[in-house]
Amino acid sequence: MAGNNFGKLFRVTTFGESHGYALGGIIDGCPSGLKLNFEEINNELNRRKPGQSSIVTQRKESDEVIFLSGIFNGLTTGTPIGFIIKNKDHNSKDYFNLKEIYRPSHSDFTYYKKYGIRDYRGGGRSSARETVSRVVAGAIAKQLLKIYNIFIKAYVSSIGNLNFSENYNKLDLSKIENTPIRCPDIKLSEKMIYYINNIRKKGDTIGGIITCNIKNVPIGIGEPVFDKLHAELGKAMLSINAVKVFEYGSGFVGTKIKGSNHNDIFTNNETTKTNFSGGIQGGLSNGMDIYFNVGFKPVATIMNKQKSIDINFFKNQILVKGRHDPCVLPRAVPIVEAMSALVLYDNMLNNRVYKI
Amino acid sequence: MAGNNFGKLFRVTTFGESHGYALGGIIDGCPSGLKLNFEEINNELNRRKPGQSSIVTQRKESDEVIFLSGIFNGLTTGTPIGFIIKNKDHNSKDYFNLKEIYRPSHSDFTYYKKYGIRDYRGGGRSSARETVSRVVAGAIAKQLLKIYNIFIKAYVSSIGNLNFSENYNKLDLSKIENTPIRCPDIKLSEKMIYYINNIRKKGDTIGGIITCNIKNVPIGIGEPVFDKLHAELGKAMLSINAVKVFEYGSGFVGTKIKGSNHNDIFTNNETTKTNFSGGIQGGLSNGMDIYFNVGFKPVATIMNKQKSIDINFFKNQILVKGRHDPCVLPRAVPIVEAMSALVLYDNMLNNRVYKI
Amino acid sequence: MAGNNFGKLFRVTTFGESHGYALGGIIDGCPSGLKLNFEEINNELNRRKPGQSSIVTQRKESDEVIFLSGIFNGLTTGTPIGFIIKNKDHNSKDYFNLKEIYRPSHSDFTYYKKYGIRDYRGGGRSSARETVSRVVAGAIAKQLLKIYNIFIKAYVSSIGNLNFSENYNKLDLSKIENTPIRCPDIKLSEKMIYYINNIRKKGDTIGGIITCNIKNVPIGIGEPVFDKLHAELGKAMLSINAVKVFEYGSGFVGTKIKGSNHNDIFTNNETTKTNFSGGIQGGLSNGMDIYFNVGFKPVATIMNKQKSIDINFFKNQILVKGRHDPCVLPRAVPIVEAMSALVLYDNMLNNRVYKI
Amino acid sequence: MAGNNFGKLFRVTTFGESHGYALGGIIDGCPSGLKLNFEEINNELNRRKPGQSSIVTQRKESDEVIFLSGIFNGLTTGTPIGFIIKNKDHNSKDYFNLKEIYRPSHSDFTYYKKYGIRDYRGGGRSSARETVSRVVAGAIAKQLLKIYNIFIKAYVSSIGNLNFSENYNKLDLSKIENTPIRCPDIKLSEKMIYYINNIRKKGDTIGGIITCNIKNVPIGIGEPVFDKLHAELGKAMLSINAVKVFEYGSGFVGTKIKGSNHNDIFTNNETTKTNFSGGIQGGLSNGMDIYFNVGFKPVATIMNKQKSIDINFFKNQILVKGRHDPCVLPRAVPIVEAMSALVLYDNMLNNRVYKI
Repeated sequence: MAGNNFGKLFRVTTFGESHGYALGGIIDGCPSGLKLNFEEINNELNRRKPGQSSIVTQRKESDEVIFLSGIFNGLTTGTPIGFIIKNKDHNSKDYFNLKEIYRPSHSDFTYYKKYGIRDYRGGGRSSARETVSRVVAGAIAKQLLKIYNIFIKAYVSSIGNLNFSENYNKLDLSKIENTPIRCPDIKLSEKMIYYINNIRKKGDTIGGIITCNIKNVPIGIGEPVFDKLHAELGKAMLSINAVKVFEYGSGFVGTKIKGSNHNDIFTNNETTKTNFSGGIQGGLSNGMDIYFNVGFKPVATIMNKQKSIDINFFKNQILVKGRHDPCVLPRAVPIVEAMSALVLYDNMLNNRVYKI
Repeated sequence: MAGNNFGKLFRVTTFGESHGYALGGIIDGCPSGLKLNFEEINNELNRRKPGQSSIVTQRKESDEVIFLSGIFNGLTTGTPIGFIIKNKDHNSKDYFNLKEIYRPSHSDFTYYKKYGIRDYRGGGRSSARETVSRVVAGAIAKQLLKIYNIFIKAYVSSIGNLNFSENYNKLDLSKIENTPIRCPDIKLSEKMIYYINNIRKKGDTIGGIITCNIKNVPIGIGEPVFDKLHAELGKAMLSINAVKVFEYGSGFVGTKIKGSNHNDIFTNNETTKTNFSGGIQGGLSNGMDIYFNVGFKPVATIMNKQKSIDINFFKNQILVKGRHDPCVLPRAVPIVEAMSALVLYDNMLNNRVYKI
Repeated sequence: MAGNNFGKLFRVTTFGESHGYALGGIIDGCPSGLKLNFEEINNELNRRKPGQSSIVTQRKESDEVIFLSGIFNGLTTGTPIGFIIKNKDHNSKDYFNLKEIYRPSHSDFTYYKKYGIRDYRGGGRSSARETVSRVVAGAIAKQLLKIYNIFIKAYVSSIGNLNFSENYNKLDLSKIENTPIRCPDIKLSEKMIYYINNIRKKGDTIGGIITCNIKNVPIGIGEPVFDKLHAELGKAMLSINAVKVFEYGSGFVGTKIKGSNHNDIFTNNETTKTNFSGGIQGGLSNGMDIYFNVGFKPVATIMNKQKSIDINFFKNQILVKGRHDPCVLPRAVPIVEAMSALVLYDNMLNNRVYKI
Repeated sequence: MAGNNFGKLFRVTTFGESHGYALGGIIDGCPSGLKLNFEEINNELNRRKPGQSSIVTQRKESDEVIFLSGIFNGLTTGTPIGFIIKNKDHNSKDYFNLKEIYRPSHSDFTYYKKYGIRDYRGGGRSSARETVSRVVAGAIAKQLLKIYNIFIKAYVSSIGNLNFSENYNKLDLSKIENTPIRCPDIKLSEKMIYYINNIRKKGDTIGGIITCNIKNVPIGIGEPVFDKLHAELGKAMLSINAVKVFEYGSGFVGTKIKGSNHNDIFTNNETTKTNFSGGIQGGLSNGMDIYFNVGFKPVATIMNKQKSIDINFFKNQILVKGRHDPCVLPRAVPIVEAMSALVLYDNMLNNRVYKI
């Protein structure tokens, strides 16, 4: 119950701190016989890794995953897949001056109060570095989903006040990786990059919204009542560092539309004319595209002096060193996809069960 | 894994359909020695029940809970609390004409596809009638939280486009129950009621937003990584029928603010000047007020003719009979509180564990 | 984590005390589309019920199960099956004199210490009356297993020192129900009945062994490492009141045989010549008959005066009133079968998952 | 649900195959602030490791554990403890001739049938090598239990037909480690060693019984109904490779004693005169010593030719190479203790929860 595992049948447990020896995890419940594509796994890690462009942190972490078990002659064996990612560029010295000061809007204070001990090196377990293990597990889930022709595509749809009003149907999602911001609208992405570079120069940070789209989910995936598919997706997204919002389908806009306009009318081939439902009815997939938005707050680590207190409640000042992200969204795109893949595949496995 | 239970240590499992013999549940993990206040439990049920005012459905369900176990001489014994609520006013005949037609934006279609069978009587298990069991369990969780002085207050903050911009700190939350809409701003609530009555007359429906505020949560409640406190709250809210959105703290607005303005600066007594964090840092409560918004779509059941298809994919028309809610929000307020209580108390229990 | 549920995918949660209003449970995860045979369910309850013969307790409990949900037009719907069994013949007055005395080798003392409260009426939750809910759930699991031609037969193989040396293969298991003791060896069963009647006249009690045999389990059922099939069966059996021993396959005898004699040599059609393995290899079923023994201690409630202490640690005497079993084994046979069915079907569901 | 984790609140997940790169695991739920004694952890690994004496396998595995996370400055931090043990002396070539043959009474056949793939190198995941991870986790649980003065001592009480009739109370448990067989009766242990050496020379194997004794468990540990303390202990023991039997307290002998002799009469200070109950009443600890027996079958790998079949069902012969244990019991003693520690500490954590 200590919060470090995810999923029921395809269950991922992770470990590791930002400045420890290694991070990693165990995937328990991966079916046997999958030929793993290691290049694709590395590709996902590269999409998440720091230092990939000018608009993200300049820390260098190569993030190589080493698989320790569960694979024999390139095939999964049905036994647990253990893996580690060693920490290399972990300069703990950057954090010595923070040893006894709480960084504002970080979890330094709450972790110390909960555990009575504090790994002050870069947030320890609470660092977003932990998501590297999620990306490995998610990359495997993606390969399993591909067997069923299910594809997940996330992209940045807003940065601060910069956003498009276009529906995702109008976008060419093949262009997501064309720019470092991972926004499929090239013109808008240029504005976003310019804006983030400005933010970075001032030592400040900004948030935004990632939209995720999932295609070809069979009808009936998800469980009723407490474990509705969108509730599981929501929990998965809200578990990602810095996420403050989850909405699916019509979302906030849907709270303002009358029922007569909001209802998705069936055509005569199991699809609906509109998709305000976001591909989910009563917690179960209805065969239409699933789509949702994930809102991120600005990164808490800014490069300017801030007031704070230390562990003895004395007033203090804080000035963070090191290399940090002015905007976490481009690197969060593969994390959103990874968590979506974990939810989807887990529910796909679960759905096999309840037919005689 | 069939989705009908909630919580880890304070675990609630529910059963029952809208037109079956009874609904109910089992609360497993309730500590022994709690003197149950049955009047308070009934009060919560009355806040949720249909027919309580002109702006909700006129169906009459008295919703009496019968406790079958786990209580001896008025005290909980630490053994599972079984309870049932009998269905009385269940007029299945209203649904005969819907037997083979899928209601738009309901789960008729997805349930039929998943299970190969359909309880067409009012949605069966997918009906919001199921939440009656959640309210019973939540009412008990509330009584347990009261021991720790933790209070949960939810209220309607928007209906359609009618909303206030006031921060919840400025509101007098003691007025929530003064109007049938459960909005503490009396003037706004009158507008909302007028608006809903108009919607109802036209056979239409509307959604809105419920805000929830939790006071006096100790520091450190919640679990890191996957089971962050706000992720659990998010899942709980998204599991409620018709919910499309969850945001906490600064939420959507927070995605547009720079880090230098968004960070919550510590004062010198463990509190922060601002509370953009919404009382949660790194997934753990930080001792400040927890607050979040829950967005509801309009009720799918409208009183006007709609196009649809039947189970053989023939085009058809649908006209729903019976008595239905034009707006679900007033009755959803106690459900939001109940689910919040379940999350909070479960995490309170869990927090006892990880100190030596 | 409070111990009142069993199973992972076919999950049963039970509630109820021996002298409360009702016992019951929820079956979550029953596949849709099963046509329930209610007569068979009643038949299992009758095999467990008190008063069925002279060698068991003369209490009369009719044990009618009322299903509250999850069934529509006689078919399971895939939603949770709630059920209750009302308590009728619960004469709490028999227990007033025990209100403050701990009955030896009962759980009065440990429950009081754990929960700080005591339901003194017949043991409350700790009473074997709780198993009535298990029998209902097990009867449904049996019907699901029948679809796969899997049959479970348990029988009494020893009472005190009376036991047969015959291997179960030599027994005619169709005769189990021919005698009230549920032993398929008619001669031996007469001796057992005579012996138990003598025990009963002296106000004493006796234990014994139940053997269980499961046929036609497909190869590969069970999970490796911690959740081996025999480990799950062992836990299930040890959870039944009064059970002290679980052995499967060669069991105790197997600890004394050399490997060269104990190994089960394969024939050339996937079967083995001997079956010391008891149908399970490495925690997974191997297609041979599964068989195991379950040992029960004598019932703790005897009809003679015993020394004890009361809750204030004063010496006291205890003389139990009421109608109690001199030997629990005949009534425990359907409980052993029910728990076996729950384990088997849960593992059957689980086995569907891990093939691509 | 794939069977590779154990425990609810102190949850251990393991991975690794006998001839893979490494084995290891994650401990999730270890409280913060424990000063780990690494020497004690190594000592437990040494008690389990091969090559420690003439009566066990002569394979050399040094079994060094590397901790990857969850520890900072020698103290546990409350975050997950990841660890690995690298495989060094893994001579897979010994297994090439077994690539397509099923070893009798091993899980080669059942694993191949379940997963459709086979890691033929020394049993892969099904090898008892997996228990090395359990010993690491158990060693940490032991250190946590020591805080509460709880001690667990296991010893070999029978090998084949060699056993003592002495009650464990008469034994000097401090002598367990004095002989390589781990039997506290020195005379008997010499006979056992002589016997095993003879067995080994003939290429044969033998089983036996390990007895485990747990002192100072507080009253009320365990959960009622399905998760009784002895049911959890039973499952834990039955999950260890080669275990066929679990009995606690009076066990098999108890099935033959009358209730009037079997009941444990209270003295006037919360203890009982006898302890047929084995320290557990109604599934909850009663403060007396907990004791149980664990029966092991002979090791399936013998050094003589055996008949078998290959994966195409052709008759074949098998002659195993490599270095194997003639008797697994001396090395299984620390495994029995480790699993006992995991059960006990998990239940200790759980017991904190259900008091208001």
